[in-house]
Amino acid sequence: MVDDHTSLLARTAETFRKDSHIDVQIEHEVIEILPDRQSVRVVDLKSKKERIESYDKLLLATGAKPVQPFPAVSSIENLMVIKSLASGIVLKDYIAREQVSSVVIVGAGYIGVELAEALTMRNIKVTMIQRGAHVMNIFDPSMAQRIADGLERHGVTLLTNTEVTGFEVQDNKVREVIANGQTIPADLFLLGLGVTPNSALAKNAGLHLGPAGSIEVDDRQRTSDDNIWAAGDCCQAIHLVSNKPVFIPLGTTANKQGRTAGINIGGGQARFNGVLGTAITKYKDVECALTGLNSKQLKILGMDFVSGEINANTLPTYYPGGSSLAVKLFAERTTHRILGGQIVGGPGSAKRIDTLAMALHAGFTLEDMLNVDLSYAPPFATVWDPLVIAARVALKQVHQKSR
Amino acid sequence: MVDDHTSLLARTAETFRKDSHIDVQIEHEVIEILPDRQSVRVVDLKSKKERIESYDKLLLATGAKPVQPFPAVSSIENLMVIKSLASGIVLKDYIAREQVSSVVIVGAGYIGVELAEALTMRNIKVTMIQRGAHVMNIFDPSMAQRIADGLERHGVTLLTNTEVTGFEVQDNKVREVIANGQTIPADLFLLGLGVTPNSALAKNAGLHLGPAGSIEVDDRQRTSDDNIWAAGDCCQAIHLVSNKPVFIPLGTTANKQGRTAGINIGGGQARFNGVLGTAITKYKDVECALTGLNSKQLKILGMDFVSGEINANTLPTYYPGGSSLAVKLFAERTTHRILGGQIVGGPGSAKRIDTLAMALHAGFTLEDMLNVDLSYAPPFATVWDPLVIAARVALKQVHQKSR
Repeated sequence: MVDDHTSLLARTAETFRKDSHIDVQIEHEVIEILPDRQSVRVVDLKSKKERIESYDKLLLATGAKPVQPFPAVSSIENLMVIKSLASGIVLKDYIAREQVSSVVIVGAGYIGVELAEALTMRNIKVTMIQRGAHVMNIFDPSMAQRIADGLERHGVTLLTNTEVTGFEVQDNKVREVIANGQTIPADLFLLGLGVTPNSALAKNAGLHLGPAGSIEVDDRQRTSDDNIWAAGDCCQAIHLVSNKPVFIPLGTTANKQGRTAGINIGGGQARFNGVLGTAITKYKDVECALTGLNSKQLKILGMDFVSGEINANTLPTYYPGGSSLAVKLFAERTTHRILGGQIVGGPGSAKRIDTLAMALHAGFTLEDMLNVDLSYAPPFATVWDPLVIAARVALKQVHQKSR
Repeated sequence: MVDDHTSLLARTAETFRKDSHIDVQIEHEVIEILPDRQSVRVVDLKSKKERIESYDKLLLATGAKPVQPFPAVSSIENLMVIKSLASGIVLKDYIAREQVSSVVIVGAGYIGVELAEALTMRNIKVTMIQRGAHVMNIFDPSMAQRIADGLERHGVTLLTNTEVTGFEVQDNKVREVIANGQTIPADLFLLGLGVTPNSALAKNAGLHLGPAGSIEVDDRQRTSDDNIWAAGDCCQAIHLVSNKPVFIPLGTTANKQGRTAGINIGGGQARFNGVLGTAITKYKDVECALTGLNSKQLKILGMDFVSGEINANTLPTYYPGGSSLAVKLFAERTTHRILGGQIVGGPGSAKRIDTLAMALHAGFTLEDMLNVDLSYAPPFATVWDPLVIAARVALKQVHQKSR
């Protein structure tokens, strides 16, 4: 657990001013971009005064905002969306002040799962409600089931195929959530229903938008306006497996896009080729990670693919401290090119996804994976890496199906 | 610690017989290959009887043997080389029986370091003697120094630049080792001076040999004789960075070569392209790993290269459980192609070498590394991966030196 939230702040407005001579104006809101005048309309949120600021180049780094499909209850104190450090602090303080002992989390994606971990570590009873059949539905069903097993094994009550239709409110507090005709009471209700890009300013300025309303950018992070750039959770990226624009807001991507935009705005030359959607999280001792495309996405793209799914161990079974893991790998049937992969397992399993991410960047086939020279010693690995075993199983499927 | 050595046995002669119908003849020694007659001379070590066995195809998997430069003392009980599971059992039994409290290890490579870990875990006083200036001299000096610091921090007495010239023997036991004119007493003396290929049979049969006397093979694991194949620690491999044959005996390579040879002998088609020399080990909480070439090897090859060396952390500093690590990366000055890399750090650091091994397999440049989509979440990684930071530092060196 992190003791003090101040350690989570990478930089303050003061740091920007002192170290980089950047004039950061906090508590100011840009309400309109005027591309023809290379200007923005800004409101000082303290004095409520409005002014026009001109720019040579404008960078949009407006991020994303959590989905909140229940606007009627948005002002209620014990129904929260966690969108920022500030809202995390509000949550933490509320739990302590109100002695919260039970929480309902609506949505079982990354944020839902990470909230569940933080709450169960504080001995709070957690119920997760998921509309779909599986938690973490970016994973294939068989892999998602392993994550669900981990959540339930460590105390989370999981309600899948369950849709929230409303909330019972009394004395300006939610008392119960209504889902599939049932009501489930709790002290606190959290929404983890994903995010949507904060692109209203860009849209109103006439900039082109991409998937899910994200801001369209080229590989230099330039928008459809020559003087306006965008980076981070507000904008699209190219998926390196499908070569199509996607909206996959993640911290590492935001950093790389920001760096690329900064270099280009400063007169340099930098390109950001795109993403694989590599992501990782954990719930207690259950780790999960993926990269590239999953089977649902591959089907939507109409790709002909095979998969290999295996169970293996992080370490030789004779060596203490290892754990089991499952790997699922996807490859194009005709070319054998690897298209994506997923890992769910115990401690020391999920970070191995990086090896597969590199294989995707390299455009490797299943055959290429068979001979990669990965590190081996009993305290670290098995002599045949689980990813290599999965590649071999997927290759068998190629040969079986093509008979 | 592993409790019982039987768990370390992958297969017994009986398993081979039952599961695979393979007639394994243990306690038999092949003393000569007769390539023209497609036969071998075999001695039954129990009955001492000799016979000729013919073959269609012959696979040499004779492994490597430890270097023992002190033949005069090779029959002495408390001077050991650790070469097999059997010799490990002898060591373990000797320590218990003789209540060993102090050990001198000659040689500070992988085997020396791993022996030191096993011994200090049993509260035995360990002195390591290394002829060269650095332990683990496959690492660059600055990285090797970090390993040395770890050994010394956790109780090993390290004597570098120290050459063993002999042993004081009394009552058929070594009492002291003589090194740099000094004598160092101990209960037990272990040699970890590397290995040399067991290639005498191949040599005597007229097969071509490669580096360090290893058996020359092509990418199908065939030797210079059409009917004789070789795999494992007895034979060479092609280094994928230098494209030159090398002798780097490692378990993963042996497995891949064995699989390749087996498929080809069985009439299939398999190729083993080569190795990067990826290796990993640890001493208590100090992990180290490398892949590709080090600066000494690059100099010998006459390559013009830059390097980037950085200190970073496995996790964001605010997140509990992280550790520090150092990364050193090498790249060709003109093409920026990555040539090798090394990691030394705390728990959770060394296995990340696999990401770099994949970059080498892919022939990636430093620029390619800047945008790789590696997994990020605070329990697993920093937002900028240490390998990416090292690539950026190496790129700066390219630009500085070329001004």
